[in-house]
Amino acid sequence: MTAEQAPNKPATPLLDTVDTPDDLRRLAPTQLRQLADELRLEMIDAVGQTGGHLGSGLGVVELTTAIHYVFDTPNDRLVWDVGHQAYPHKILTGRRGRIRTLRQGGGLSGFTKRSESEYDPFGAAHSSTSISAALGFAVANKLSGKPGKGIAVIGDGAMSAGMAYEAMNNAEQAGNRLVVILNDNDMSIAPPVGGLSSYLARLVTSGQFLGLRELARKFARKLPRPLHVAARKTDEFARGMAMGGTLFEELGFYYVGPIDGHDLDALVPVLENVRDAAEGPCLIHVVTQKGKGYGPAEQSADKYHGVQKFDVITGEQKKSKGGPPNYQNVFGETLAKLAETDERICAITAAMPGGTGVDKFSKRHPERSFDVGIAEQHAVTFAAGLAAQGMRPFCAIYSTFLQRAFDQVVHDVAIQNLPVRFAIDRAGLVGADGATHAGSFDVTYLTTLPNMVVMAAADEAELAHMTYTAACHDSGPIAFRYPRGAGTGVPMPEQPERLEIGKGRIVRKGSKIAVLSLGTRLAEALKAADQLEAKGLSTTVADLRFAKPLDEDMIRRLIASHEVVVTVEEGAIGGLGAHVLTMASDEGLLDAGLKIRTMRLPDQFQDHDSPERQYDAAGLNAPHIVDTVLKALRHNSAGVEEARA
Amino acid sequence: MTAEQAPNKPATPLLDTVDTPDDLRRLAPTQLRQLADELRLEMIDAVGQTGGHLGSGLGVVELTTAIHYVFDTPNDRLVWDVGHQAYPHKILTGRRGRIRTLRQGGGLSGFTKRSESEYDPFGAAHSSTSISAALGFAVANKLSGKPGKGIAVIGDGAMSAGMAYEAMNNAEQAGNRLVVILNDNDMSIAPPVGGLSSYLARLVTSGQFLGLRELARKFARKLPRPLHVAARKTDEFARGMAMGGTLFEELGFYYVGPIDGHDLDALVPVLENVRDAAEGPCLIHVVTQKGKGYGPAEQSADKYHGVQKFDVITGEQKKSKGGPPNYQNVFGETLAKLAETDERICAITAAMPGGTGVDKFSKRHPERSFDVGIAEQHAVTFAAGLAAQGMRPFCAIYSTFLQRAFDQVVHDVAIQNLPVRFAIDRAGLVGADGATHAGSFDVTYLTTLPNMVVMAAADEAELAHMTYTAACHDSGPIAFRYPRGAGTGVPMPEQPERLEIGKGRIVRKGSKIAVLSLGTRLAEALKAADQLEAKGLSTTVADLRFAKPLDEDMIRRLIASHEVVVTVEEGAIGGLGAHVLTMASDEGLLDAGLKIRTMRLPDQFQDHDSPERQYDAAGLNAPHIVDTVLKALRHNSAGVEEARA
Repeated sequence: MTAEQAPNKPATPLLDTVDTPDDLRRLAPTQLRQLADELRLEMIDAVGQTGGHLGSGLGVVELTTAIHYVFDTPNDRLVWDVGHQAYPHKILTGRRGRIRTLRQGGGLSGFTKRSESEYDPFGAAHSSTSISAALGFAVANKLSGKPGKGIAVIGDGAMSAGMAYEAMNNAEQAGNRLVVILNDNDMSIAPPVGGLSSYLARLVTSGQFLGLRELARKFARKLPRPLHVAARKTDEFARGMAMGGTLFEELGFYYVGPIDGHDLDALVPVLENVRDAAEGPCLIHVVTQKGKGYGPAEQSADKYHGVQKFDVITGEQKKSKGGPPNYQNVFGETLAKLAETDERICAITAAMPGGTGVDKFSKRHPERSFDVGIAEQHAVTFAAGLAAQGMRPFCAIYSTFLQRAFDQVVHDVAIQNLPVRFAIDRAGLVGADGATHAGSFDVTYLTTLPNMVVMAAADEAELAHMTYTAACHDSGPIAFRYPRGAGTGVPMPEQPERLEIGKGRIVRKGSKIAVLSLGTRLAEALKAADQLEAKGLSTTVADLRFAKPLDEDMIRRLIASHEVVVTVEEGAIGGLGAHVLTMASDEGLLDAGLKIRTMRLPDQFQDHDSPERQYDAAGLNAPHIVDTVLKALRHNSAGVEEARA
Repeated sequence: MTAEQAPNKPATPLLDTVDTPDDLRRLAPTQLRQLADELRLEMIDAVGQTGGHLGSGLGVVELTTAIHYVFDTPNDRLVWDVGHQAYPHKILTGRRGRIRTLRQGGGLSGFTKRSESEYDPFGAAHSSTSISAALGFAVANKLSGKPGKGIAVIGDGAMSAGMAYEAMNNAEQAGNRLVVILNDNDMSIAPPVGGLSSYLARLVTSGQFLGLRELARKFARKLPRPLHVAARKTDEFARGMAMGGTLFEELGFYYVGPIDGHDLDALVPVLENVRDAAEGPCLIHVVTQKGKGYGPAEQSADKYHGVQKFDVITGEQKKSKGGPPNYQNVFGETLAKLAETDERICAITAAMPGGTGVDKFSKRHPERSFDVGIAEQHAVTFAAGLAAQGMRPFCAIYSTFLQRAFDQVVHDVAIQNLPVRFAIDRAGLVGADGATHAGSFDVTYLTTLPNMVVMAAADEAELAHMTYTAACHDSGPIAFRYPRGAGTGVPMPEQPERLEIGKGRIVRKGSKIAVLSLGTRLAEALKAADQLEAKGLSTTVADLRFAKPLDEDMIRRLIASHEVVVTVEEGAIGGLGAHVLTMASDEGLLDAGLKIRTMRLPDQFQDHDSPERQYDAAGLNAPHIVDTVLKALRHNSAGVEEARA
């Protein structure tokens, strides 16, 4: 056993004997209840120390246990959708010893990750990818004649994304190599929305569905083999002709459920039945309770979806200290206030009302607030339709999730030049959520589009200005990006100000070095300027505000009057730096030579850590800016760095 | 009337009296049959002259007539999904006079387009956006108290995309302001795939569904008002409890259908009924025949989906002259051949087997060929699953459609560094399909991603090499882009060659000017070099082959040894040029001055025209390259262009 035994740790005598699913499978079915109970205690204790996603994992303790007990993992390829719920899975698959490092720098990821374990055949974090991936595993095994199923565990919230539907629509080819387990807890992160959600509710309340189907199936199995096949065909035929069955059956699945996901005596035999049945792709509808088995979580509105470190006995979460307002609050409240005098303003979120601050808007303007579920593609084109009919829609979506609507941004918004406002949250590096949640690419993928205006807020006051500027901008699409978390503490304006499109501001005047900043690196740029000044290097710092259109006048002036020009941004290659260089080279501003450098995110995906350490690893803090300037100054015209003076 | 009367034009006396839907609505219902017949003749004649999308339009002649007859367009906002089928709509909405300019430079677009007509409230071309947009219109009207419904007409193929499902899942909020017309012709472009398709087939074959529902509804309407409401609630309750009804009802729609979409006597009353009903969002399932009413189209396998100019009497399409093989054929056949000795190679297409050349592969390797339907998101993550299990999947997707799977490329492929091969078709400008189909952004949105290798083929032999190179590349994702249509006529290699990753080639050696080309502008670059040479300017031409990783050694050498460096690519800002500039500035190669220029697509969406004229407008032909070089040479260090010598 690899688990460290700390003094206050719960007693887990049975779990202590289980390091991998092989150990688990040696237990008797009657021992599973105890194992699950211990697994739950262990998880609560661990997340109490690390913070993280608690509610989802608590809901699938029994399901996790049953799946590994019944299926032949890792040969059966188990794919957890999103991965928030995979902590118990990690504990049971050789990672218990590191479970108290969850989401810490150098520790376990908060999601599944291929590099962590052979039991994680597919990494996750964005919603609704699991069925497609599991189908890929199933089909690959079918083609290469290998044994092993593809198993996807997917929440009801994730089912609202189109991608899950696309995958289900393609499932039939996998035969019985594909198993989809629908983990229905009637909430994703926020309460669920849409037709599917009410459909599932009807299924659950209707009760005895499993009994009827099981009865029929068991009867069919007792028939001699040829008749069994015939009975199956008749069954299929009847399903088809009656157009009955469930939504899932209409898409080609065998549907089993609903099943109580906390009842191991129900789960294990049903999973065994599905494992051994040979009747095509199967969808098992399991009903679970988010936060199950931990009072404070069960009683909380969000079921402890994501928590800070907390006291296991009381459930009390460590409060974040007071301080500057979150960017999310500033956005939500500014927008809500603007909407008081502007009836055209609407807000759209894709299942992230709290995360984006749209909840602040919804409270005051419920009729103009739209939570479309996990459905970014629809969110953007729906907003385009609203805009085409004269509304002023704000789509508040995390940078990384807006990737899922990129085509809609291009095709429905940019080509048509419709004034959709994109509030791009979680711009730049995001800390504990790691590479999958980093907002690294939006400046690049948006500034390459004609008609698009792209801003980045340097602080929370700027965010208020940009929210207002976006509201006023009716001539085409406009986006503004800002990071997660607390602002910088600047004074907030009484009234937000309308910024001139494509105009930056000089924050500090100097004469030799010019730092062109986009976004919240501005604070580091100013720190760097102080340090450079101390070395006798007079430094200008500009906040460009706009990645598109560029403030070309300002850039020309700064290039003409400074010896070294450095751009700094919280994004990958192709963003601000690339646009400044392109403009400068096009105009011949580099013909006679210029020490110009671009600082940006490195060309690699960065693992989870604190944002400060992530930016340090990315080389985007003040000392790196200073270093870049000094190196440029020492660089001679032969292209080699000169020795230090 | 605006239609020109050419000598051979069909006689269309009734249609000649209809310029807009207002004229149409003045006709008696009994005249609609004749109008539809004339509309069909007119359309066949027009497309015979222009080429274009014929089959889809022929299938909806009656539906188009009935919709405009019944609904209050343009106040009711009619959104045609994709827009291939909107030619009859264009004829009836004031554009008959320009219908013989379809898809020609300066003429009508082949899709709906906001700038063309108030009857096109939302532009289209990519599939499955119509329900989201129509919902946006409906909700905007609801919020602002305006009358007017949102009406989406969407094909069964388009229904396989997740986006349509996301929109349906959100439809309930629109109440009866949303009408979705499912145009079910049992084929999108190729025959349809998946569970939804067989579901629809069952619906259609089951027959008398409409009758039953209509009967119940008519009965309910005859009740006094309060009872009517109660009956409706009971109806809903019964639907819910029985879990019956259709997939669409489970998502919250009232379902009406299937209806014969060529029978105006059925269509008009059903549409009227839906228009006047007040019972929530409605889905009308209309069954049509693609190519209806034109023998050659009805008998063709693809129902004349997209055609060249053709002879109206015989249906014979203008053959494209023989010549170099299409890029699509080269890709499909190279891959099929490679797969003979490599069992791990698979091919995936999203409803474009013919367009991408994957059909060549499918014929020889059907079991390893996957047409997932219009479902790019699933296609990519399914491929990632295949790759994670050891297969060598090739995703063949048009550049513009891969935008729809951008997040899957980032999250499931690049972050996990899985060796999915992206065959990116329709790179660069595409001619008659216009801005919505241009492959302008892929180099930018792919090269910004860590782990990604991005190639562009300069000719069809290079494409064969790149297909083979991708097959061999197991260490991570790799993409190769190539244009639509015929190659350049270079000799094809016996065996494709494995290219070294990140290495370009010098195609022509010079000393003063260096042109760095990516993709098929190479031919123009070579022409430009000839012209420059004639002016005494010795010119090097490099085919970089790789936009990522760059051939840094080659770029360093060329920068060090040439006076002017120009990059040329068929993509928007953020691609090759930006990467070369970033590398060069980072390394200090620009410190001492370099006349470097980047040539790329302009920062605007370009309308349809011939590709040659489009590239001319984009400034990417040989004369533009020459001009760029000459201007750079004349540019003095003060940043102004000097007078010609």
